[in-house]
This record gives sequence, structure tokens and C-alpha cells, in this order.
Amino acid sequence: MSIRYISQKIAQQIDEELMSSSGAFSLDQLMELAGLSCAQALYKSYPSATHKKVMVACGPGNQGGDGLVAARHLHHFSYKPTIYLPKPGSKDIYQSLLKQCENLNIPVIKDVEEFNNGLKDTDVILDAIFGFSFHPPLRAPFDKVLNAITATSIPIVSVDIPSGWSVTDGLQPLYTEKDEQGNSQSIKTFEPEVLVSLTAPKEGVKNFKGKHWLGGRFVPNELAKKFELNLPEYQGVDQVVELPSALTSKQ
Amino acid sequence: MSIRYISQKIAQQIDEELMSSSGAFSLDQLMELAGLSCAQALYKSYPSATHKKVMVACGPGNQGGDGLVAARHLHHFSYKPTIYLPKPGSKDIYQSLLKQCENLNIPVIKDVEEFNNGLKDTDVILDAIFGFSFHPPLRAPFDKVLNAITATSIPIVSVDIPSGWSVTDGLQPLYTEKDEQGNSQSIKTFEPEVLVSLTAPKEGVKNFKGKHWLGGRFVPNELAKKFELNLPEYQGVDQVVELPSALTSKQ
Repeated sequence: MSIRYISQKIAQQIDEELMSSSGAFSLDQLMELAGLSCAQALYKSYPSATHKKVMVACGPGNQGGDGLVAARHLHHFSYKPTIYLPKPGSKDIYQSLLKQCENLNIPVIKDVEEFNNGLKDTDVILDAIFGFSFHPPLRAPFDKVLNAITATSIPIVSVDIPSGWSVTDGLQPLYTEKDEQGNSQSIKTFEPEVLVSLTAPKEGVKNFKGKHWLGGRFVPNELAKKFELNLPEYQGVDQVVELPSALTSKQ
Repeated sequence: MSIRYISQKIAQQIDEELMSSSGAFSLDQLMELAGLSCAQALYKSYPSATHKKVMVACGPGNQGGDGLVAARHLHHFSYKPTIYLPKPGSKDIYQSLLKQCENLNIPVIKDVEEFNNGLKDTDVILDAIFGFSFHPPLRAPFDKVLNAITATSIPIVSVDIPSGWSVTDGLQPLYTEKDEQGNSQSIKTFEPEVLVSLTAPKEGVKNFKGKHWLGGRFVPNELAKKFELNLPEYQGVDQVVELPSALTSKQ
């Protein structure tokens, strides 16, 4: 049985069950394990020996929180991460995770020009901007952020859903949105080299052709059965497992 | 510079700093990473292929919480853990961690006779009963629990401080305590095969002769410097690193 690619609705249901009084997980725990999975997947794809400088782009929601956890673990894994926060999240947990990174002297940049400059000296991008709750439209400052990432040739590791992709329909080649002055502009999206799906892959990445990791080794068997996730077996103490590429397998 | 063996007081100070408003860690996060370290150290010492059945003995405090996290990860690492809770903790987080294990159908036993029976079918014991806050006396039911563990020849992996050892002075060969009926009785302590020190090893384990792991890959460099911990380098994405044995090195 091949793994199930889940809808946005199912992804939300699974998160709710895990954090309900019966699932008993705290957001802190799940984010810690999710972020650790992302850092491990990045390490297994681009080791610190060859790809020292990681730009970790974090959105304002829970996926941004995963990114902050990943940045901290990447620091401990001997990388030199920089955090890019186009729009910092307001939740207490987000602020705490950011403080933990600041305590490690991880640089935090907030301006898109600074981000563009920083990319010139970056070995790999961790894209933790939008997660499975993403809905268009793509508002400022994310229009510029996506265009900046799309314009580089630096390898990209995306978390859960490459930012700008539809959670249901996948890659959206071009958005046309109004900018702050009300002018129409186009926003180009990108295809990352590596993807880290969390808990279960989402419908939109069914045809993803790059290296595909699954992370989130905490899903109880009964929950996996209930949602017919057909998760693969993780090995040893790994927090990630590689999924077959859409290039070599078809369901 | 060799690693520093820290006092009970320093261990408490480090924990307080990590969880202060400036350290910004939550107890949930630190326990998750500590418990994951313990599960990884157990895996690296006694792989699931040869040591499937793990008895995880959890005390009522934070170390018991680490044990519950470890039990959950051990389940995901393909072990068959059983949890022994001589005296369950009352904190909300403890109850949540226990519920997470129950959701994985990990058996939980509470009675010392059942524990004794369970040991007959156990490949390795994870001792998470007392942590660095331990002070004698050793009250019921822990007298019987320690005697039961001491009486077996099953390999033992202890967390932070082998239960019954003094955090300052190490192995205490024999305690004499009053039991529930007021009669004097002796309690024998044990020397585990494996030890997992968390954050930094404690003074009492300076002469520990078994396999010694350090876990807790989250200590900020500045905190390590402030307390002169001289931590060794972790490798790759490992959450534990082996420390030199007291048999081969002397400070």
C-alpha cells in the first residue's frame, strides 16, 4: 500500500487530534520534533561540511516556528544559519523559539533587501514560509520574498509545501497580484530540490520530483490507521525517512 | 580541557537558566530532547534487534517525565517498552506524557510484584527513577524497587544519576531505612552498565566505569562557557555523544 497524500482538511484534523485532550501533545513538543526532522533532512541532503551557510526563511505561523526550531538544531549540527523573518509571528511560543536562536547568536534579518544580499552568501535555503494552512492571495512582503527565492540557483529545502504552491493542486507557475501601490505584478514560484513532508505528505506534492523526506516520527499507529496514512517504516533512531520520488513511482 | 562534573546546585542553576525568561525554553521542549537522548543512548548501547523488551522505570519527578518521553521514542524505534510507575507524578505535563504512551498501547504497571514478574521477561532496564534532585532517605515504595533492580542481572541504563546514588558522592553501597512497619531494612543499590548524563555529568558519577553517554544537545555555548562545562563535540545529527570511561581517563 502506498503512502496517502492528504488534503488540507485531513492535515488540520490530524494536528487537532494530536493536540486534543485525548492526543495529549503540546504544540511545543510537536514543533520541537517537526523542526528537528527538518534539520535532519537538510543535513542528510546537504551536510554541514559542504553547505555551511543556511538561510532559514520563516513565515509568521506554525511552519515558521518549525523553521526556528530547525535553525537552532542546525546551529548545534555545526551549520551557520541565518534567520529571515519577513513578518515575525506573534504567538508566545514563536517569540520563545526566536529568543532561543538569538541566545545562540544566530543572525536574524527582517528586510527583503538584506535577505537578497544574504542570499549571495548562502549555500542552501530552508523554506519554512507557508505551511499546509496556506491560501492565496500572496500578499506583501511575501511577493518579493518568493520572487527573490525563485531568482536564485541556491538549492532549496522546503518544509511540507513549497511556499506558493497550492496545498491541493501543487505548483502554481505564476501568480498575478496587486502590489502595495495597486499595480498588477507577477510572482514566480519555485520547485525546491528537497522537500520535508511533516506527518504525511500533502496532495499538492504528489508530483514532486526532487528528494522527498517524511518527518514527524510521533504519529500513533491508531491515528495512522484511522486516516489510512500507510506511513513507511523509519530506520534506527532517524527522525526522517526517504519517500519514493514521483519520478520513479506512481500510485 | 576535560569535561566538568557538576554539583547538584550547578545542575539546578543550569536548568533554571534554560527555563528562565532569558533562556526561553519550556519544560516540554527540554524533556522532549532529554527523553529522546535517553532513547538514542539506549539504542546505541542495546539495539532493538537484540534487546526488544525494555522496562522503563519512572520516578514521580522530572526524570520520570524524561523516562516517559524515552518510552514513547523507544516504541517508535521498534522496541516493546513497558512502563513501571511506582508513584506517578502529579504535574500536568507528566499526565500528558503518560497519556501519549497509553495512546501507543504501551503497558503501564504500578505494583512492585508485577514489576518483579515483568523483569523476568525484560532485555534491558531504563532507570529514570531519581534524578539530580535526589536526597535520601529512600522511602517506600522505592526501597523495594531498588532492591528488585539490584537483584537482577539484566543490563541497566541509568539516566543522569543511577537511582540511589548520591549526586555528590556517587555509589552508596547500602542504605538502612525503616520500612512501613518501622523495621530496619537494608536497601542495596546497583551499578548500571550504561549511563546517560543530561546537559553535563554530575559529580557523583566521576568514577562511573561503564559506557557513558552525554545527552541534551541544546546547551547554548554561552551557558556552557559561563559554567565552564567543557562539553565535547556531538557528531552529525546525534543527540548523544560518548564520554571517556573513568576506566581509561582520569582528570
